[in-house]
Amino acid sequence: MSQVSGRIHNRALLGRVMPAGAAAAFIEPGSTVGMSGFTGSGYPKAVPMALAHRIEAAHASGQPFSVKVWTGASTGPELDGALAQVNGIELRLPYNSDPVCRERINRGEMEYLDMHLSQVAPMAWQGFLGPLDTAVIEISGIREDGSLIPSSSVGNNKTWLDRARRVILEVNAWQNPALDGMHDIYYGTALPPDRKPIMLTRPDDRIGVPHFRCDPDKIVAIVETASPDRNLPFAPADAACRMIAGHLLEFLSHEVARGRMPAALLPLQSGVGNIANAVLTGLASGPFHGMTAYTEVIQDGMLDLLDSGRLLVASATAFSLSPDAANDLNSRMEAFRNRLILRPQEISNHPELIRRLGCIAMNGLIEADIYGNVNSTHIMGSRIQNGIGGSGDFARNAFLSVFMTPSTAKGGAISAIVPHASHVDHITQDVQVIVTEQGLADLRGLSPRRRARVIIDRCAHPTYRPLLQDYFARALQGSYGLQSPMLLDEALAFHQRYCATGSMLSS
Amino acid sequence: MSQVSGRIHNRALLGRVMPAGAAAAFIEPGSTVGMSGFTGSGYPKAVPMALAHRIEAAHASGQPFSVKVWTGASTGPELDGALAQVNGIELRLPYNSDPVCRERINRGEMEYLDMHLSQVAPMAWQGFLGPLDTAVIEISGIREDGSLIPSSSVGNNKTWLDRARRVILEVNAWQNPALDGMHDIYYGTALPPDRKPIMLTRPDDRIGVPHFRCDPDKIVAIVETASPDRNLPFAPADAACRMIAGHLLEFLSHEVARGRMPAALLPLQSGVGNIANAVLTGLASGPFHGMTAYTEVIQDGMLDLLDSGRLLVASATAFSLSPDAANDLNSRMEAFRNRLILRPQEISNHPELIRRLGCIAMNGLIEADIYGNVNSTHIMGSRIQNGIGGSGDFARNAFLSVFMTPSTAKGGAISAIVPHASHVDHITQDVQVIVTEQGLADLRGLSPRRRARVIIDRCAHPTYRPLLQDYFARALQGSYGLQSPMLLDEALAFHQRYCATGSMLSS
Repeated sequence: MSQVSGRIHNRALLGRVMPAGAAAAFIEPGSTVGMSGFTGSGYPKAVPMALAHRIEAAHASGQPFSVKVWTGASTGPELDGALAQVNGIELRLPYNSDPVCRERINRGEMEYLDMHLSQVAPMAWQGFLGPLDTAVIEISGIREDGSLIPSSSVGNNKTWLDRARRVILEVNAWQNPALDGMHDIYYGTALPPDRKPIMLTRPDDRIGVPHFRCDPDKIVAIVETASPDRNLPFAPADAACRMIAGHLLEFLSHEVARGRMPAALLPLQSGVGNIANAVLTGLASGPFHGMTAYTEVIQDGMLDLLDSGRLLVASATAFSLSPDAANDLNSRMEAFRNRLILRPQEISNHPELIRRLGCIAMNGLIEADIYGNVNSTHIMGSRIQNGIGGSGDFARNAFLSVFMTPSTAKGGAISAIVPHASHVDHITQDVQVIVTEQGLADLRGLSPRRRARVIIDRCAHPTYRPLLQDYFARALQGSYGLQSPMLLDEALAFHQRYCATGSMLSS
Repeated sequence: MSQVSGRIHNRALLGRVMPAGAAAAFIEPGSTVGMSGFTGSGYPKAVPMALAHRIEAAHASGQPFSVKVWTGASTGPELDGALAQVNGIELRLPYNSDPVCRERINRGEMEYLDMHLSQVAPMAWQGFLGPLDTAVIEISGIREDGSLIPSSSVGNNKTWLDRARRVILEVNAWQNPALDGMHDIYYGTALPPDRKPIMLTRPDDRIGVPHFRCDPDKIVAIVETASPDRNLPFAPADAACRMIAGHLLEFLSHEVARGRMPAALLPLQSGVGNIANAVLTGLASGPFHGMTAYTEVIQDGMLDLLDSGRLLVASATAFSLSPDAANDLNSRMEAFRNRLILRPQEISNHPELIRRLGCIAMNGLIEADIYGNVNSTHIMGSRIQNGIGGSGDFARNAFLSVFMTPSTAKGGAISAIVPHASHVDHITQDVQVIVTEQGLADLRGLSPRRRARVIIDRCAHPTYRPLLQDYFARALQGSYGLQSPMLLDEALAFHQRYCATGSMLSS
């Protein structure tokens, strides 16, 4: 079969072009598949669907068939959605935002391993996750020498290509050829005792090479595609988002004025979502110039910020753009090329680098308790939403660690500020600032009792504030110890009420 | 006043020798004092007591007088105990194990800020903790050029000397002169954007200088002392400690046999305490040769391990030796000198270095829940025991993160394994192995539901196992979501029962 894309420049590999169905036939039941993909970018778009058809057919004839799926982070509906729909995923790691997967995980039908994104590649090397049978990696082209031009996300692709017994490539002609040269693939990692310092000191340092290498003998199939990445459009920023962004920008200005932050700020890390986007948009018209970003994903607001001239450069592991922004980027890729760098996620999220650069980490949350313990993952303590992602990598190592959320959810039935977090992903030590539309709590240097007062006063919604004040006042009387006062019988009462009545408010 | 110790070799500074009372007079009410000290080592032994007398006298005459106390970690009774006894501490950071302080903190009479030990120095530089008025630092001598020979702990001394407006030195003649040359004080840290890679790649690399520098104009007083460090003797290892050590050594052998760990293991980090000591003692007669340690403190077992020849070198920030072991070390200091290195705690605990070296982290815990969330600090969720110390620095960045505990406490009234941790210091992602005398749970690569089964089966005490099995079985039926099944009304029932009846067991 010959190529249609013109993107495969290595003669030997041309012979391995085949339809997705034939490629998917290499994947055995029960095996482990390492797929590309980080947010809705750069994930394989044909082989997973062909695999889903195979699995469906097997199930229809009474044969068991499922696989373990490792990725960079979340992917698109053609991967997680398609495979989960046919109950084809036995274990999923390290992050998921697909609704069909989420449902199966929370019904106990799928194993889900929620990991720090910086640790996936090193742990895969460490060996305890088991062998990686097949890598299915989207790329944007193959060069004459057999090296691979990465696509719109890097994620763990380097590691999957190195570790997998066999490799299936998807060459996606939809990806812009001008991506070539934008990536920085660092091949200097190792297992201890052979690890070396990673010599990156600025967000725009290049410490690797632009292409993946891959043993050609392992490449069993190449599938050509021409399908767009599928990220969801962002909702326009609502009033709450704009207020949160406003509070945070005011705080950052204050830190600069106090001499505690350089005038150009420090490298920005921004989680994905509408609030993060509102902050980035706010920064585009804010007082800061000469900014940089060292983050996981480049979302719409980041492009606006580059356009504004305020942001000089952004380093990430993936694009996470709405369809409009993706088209815009594609139409002007050359202009952005020297200002964007995509790296493996073990580098974009590496604690060594985040602490050295001194990132400003800005992440969302599900709930925070009055002491500033943050739950980013489990609704009512047990139901997984997405996963911890890179928030732990950034929050613990940041120069400034900010968490942002509207103060209520579900039309006021859920308070984002609770007496006691029903699950903890970020401990108080790693949570320095909490922002809601109500205000900003600067928790740095405060003991737990002081943190409680500030969080309740500044961040809680007025509807919930009296309940929280009442709880805290009574905890000061009735707690076993007073370092972090707690009433054991009432600590989870907000959550109990919600599960019983549909609202955290007392009736 | 002339010196009695013969340890002050700088002429200009000789004139500043004075009694402790005169030195303590420099410390103003309400000010912040940065003291040396890390465990019962290297803390100032005279000035804090003189300050306590001053505070007592002030209080007796109706004057308010308290100070904020920053240290390396815990100290001795002459510091924390003496100052807390007279209610002289307003705020304490970053770690405490003094019983008088603990009591005041848990009665709500003292503010306590529990910090990651790696972050204390950088956060002091960052500025939000406020200014540092006075440093009170124990050293073992002053050289001709005015540089200072560190004592038996380094902790945050470099930072306190640099940051404080004025400096009081205690020259302790009890400290062995042969300590000189053992320290490695790294002066390469900075605030972002000026941070650089820290070029340490082996536990015995020296990247700094052996002495502190200090602007002589800031030194307002020098006090001579000759008092021993005061660490508590270790209890001899009981059966539970030996069983925990046995399980862990067997596991490490298994990892080496599987090729997942080098035969010399990887740099050991070991928390303080009897279990840690039993593990070190076990390693002294175990199968591993050529070991190294990159840890916080050097305790008795570490010296035994050096003596055995199995441990080549140990890097730490402090000694934490029983009186007998301290005497033994003092009598043979020359023999140990090239095999021990003491560093600032921001280096001994630096995430960059811990991840690069790939430490084996071994820490204690108060309780772990069935998903492997670990509480290291708060008894019954609210009462602080000591603090998180460096456990978060090591656990998150280790190659292997182990937590160890007897399965019960208080004669069986408390289970170390609970349905839901009443406070979380280490999230499941950072807890790879849990060991009790019952057995070892290898949690790596397991989803929460699988973790629960392994922890209950391997680690829980047989008395509590049926209660935990029953809770988990019912949680699988009645939980809001099934990623980490939880019954909100019963999650804290073990703790509620303990507070109500004195035992976590149902009546």
